[in-house]
Amino acid sequence: MDASRFEPQDPAFAERVRASFARQGAMGTIGAALCEIAPGRVTIELPWQQGLTQQHGFLHAGMVATALDSACGYAASTLMPAEAGVLTIEFKINLLAPAQGQRFRMEGVVVKPGRTITVTEGRAYALHEGREKLIATLGATLMTITGREGIQH
Amino acid sequence: MDASRFEPQDPAFAERVRASFARQGAMGTIGAALCEIAPGRVTIELPWQQGLTQQHGFLHAGMVATALDSACGYAASTLMPAEAGVLTIEFKINLLAPAQGQRFRMEGVVVKPGRTITVTEGRAYALHEGREKLIATLGATLMTITGREGIQH
Amino acid sequence: MDASRFEPQDPAFAERVRASFARQGAMGTIGAALCEIAPGRVTIELPWQQGLTQQHGFLHAGMVATALDSACGYAASTLMPAEAGVLTIEFKINLLAPAQGQRFRMEGVVVKPGRTITVTEGRAYALHEGREKLIATLGATLMTITGREGIQH
Amino acid sequence: MDASRFEPQDPAFAERVRASFARQGAMGTIGAALCEIAPGRVTIELPWQQGLTQQHGFLHAGMVATALDSACGYAASTLMPAEAGVLTIEFKINLLAPAQGQRFRMEGVVVKPGRTITVTEGRAYALHEGREKLIATLGATLMTITGREGIQH
Repeated sequence: MDASRFEPQDPAFAERVRASFARQGAMGTIGAALCEIAPGRVTIELPWQQGLTQQHGFLHAGMVATALDSACGYAASTLMPAEAGVLTIEFKINLLAPAQGQRFRMEGVVVKPGRTITVTEGRAYALHEGREKLIATLGATLMTITGREGIQH
Repeated sequence: MDASRFEPQDPAFAERVRASFARQGAMGTIGAALCEIAPGRVTIELPWQQGLTQQHGFLHAGMVATALDSACGYAASTLMPAEAGVLTIEFKINLLAPAQGQRFRMEGVVVKPGRTITVTEGRAYALHEGREKLIATLGATLMTITGREGIQH
Repeated sequence: MDASRFEPQDPAFAERVRASFARQGAMGTIGAALCEIAPGRVTIELPWQQGLTQQHGFLHAGMVATALDSACGYAASTLMPAEAGVLTIEFKINLLAPAQGQRFRMEGVVVKPGRTITVTEGRAYALHEGREKLIATLGATLMTITGREGIQH
Repeated sequence: MDASRFEPQDPAFAERVRASFARQGAMGTIGAALCEIAPGRVTIELPWQQGLTQQHGFLHAGMVATALDSACGYAASTLMPAEAGVLTIEFKINLLAPAQGQRFRMEGVVVKPGRTITVTEGRAYALHEGREKLIATLGATLMTITGREGIQH
């Protein structure tokens, strides 16, 4: 998943991603922080908290998906025009291991950018007792939205 | 998606689902409530809140997925033995329309129960200005876990 | 999955679907026949044959997917403009039971039509010793293509 | 997607995969050949043929999926016990570009092996006019089957 080959259309992509991320109420709720914003690649981290758990105390699959979907959506966004908005059409997640850990790192990378459709892949890692473990993979399909009031960035 | 044909193995399935749901920190965070618990079918509702949004103020796709995944997981759980735990192996969500509304209803139903693998389908509806609209479909594959410490219900 | 509420834009949708289906070499190879073409709904049938099997003699999951993808793609196509082409962006299939039988019926229905993106669902049934059994569900996302040379119908 | 870290349980995994592949009628129909069989990694190649096409003369998405599903299933199989059978529970495919080319190469690799559930990823490449292009990604979940008559290898 080498994203270095992608050229951004908008030189201010990182500021645009930060501003949009700050407007996502969900990111505040899950305690997520943007760690890396590169062309075609975005990384998000968050700590475990009780309010994100399923019944066994692991991170809820949906919360893993929430962070991965944002990482993938913003990875796609880095390659879009300045005025474009991005919407998730669909995503699919495989839970490889219980989301057990103190912290979690979510990577989203663009596999195939496109004018209308962008395909991305995400990987979630748990940091548990000093070891990092792959806990989930996600594939998301995003759509570039232009000229629609209220759907921007 | 007629779930009425399923016979629960555990007559106390509803109590079991309620107890497990109460332990999910994520359900508290998203303000979700269990509405219907029938064999092979569970419905969850939640109100809009700022802390669940993406950048345009709609419900974040991951939060829609969180509620749908729980609805599907508990729908599967209703048909499992009393001592079994349930884990999501994977799910896929299609976002059909922006998750715009005052309230949201998530339905999970079992398509195919199994000893090891159960396949479910979920549908998310937004209640917006008095009208209900289908906003997402989700398919989830669940695994029955037995005899593993810490993975129960 | 009630598709009766959809209005076709192109009154000649059925002829268009039949002509396109006839050009799919893959449909000839799998012995598929179009059974029903209604607005937002297409059904395809095929017999078992050795050339479609996996290692246990059941229909190969990919062959089930081939027929379901065509059923879903043509279901989407029935609601598209006369000059539009349709491309599959992605699909996901759940194999619920071994594809064992003498004949197979694939149903594709539109869940949500759209100008650019159409979401569909498919169900595959095996006819085995006189009984019909649900063996697979598929969800496909299709894109309407207009004005692109070589991508029509 | 580094599969080299996996240790096979069955030293005769390659012979087992070859024997099973030879029993898949579908592989003969699509003209597929096994190219690489390593622990956690299998590659399949096939030439274009008219009998595998969709309406524009590209490879049908379902045929791409057929080859990728086999590549992923056999990648999983390389890490399974000698007597185990493998069944696909589900897969999801993203079509990144039209499957246009003279030859196609399908890679399947194991992301996470497991006693019951194995998760794999596949990538399809088209060789078109001397250049290789990524045309599809697939994620498949496989189940290990043991002790069930008729479901072996």
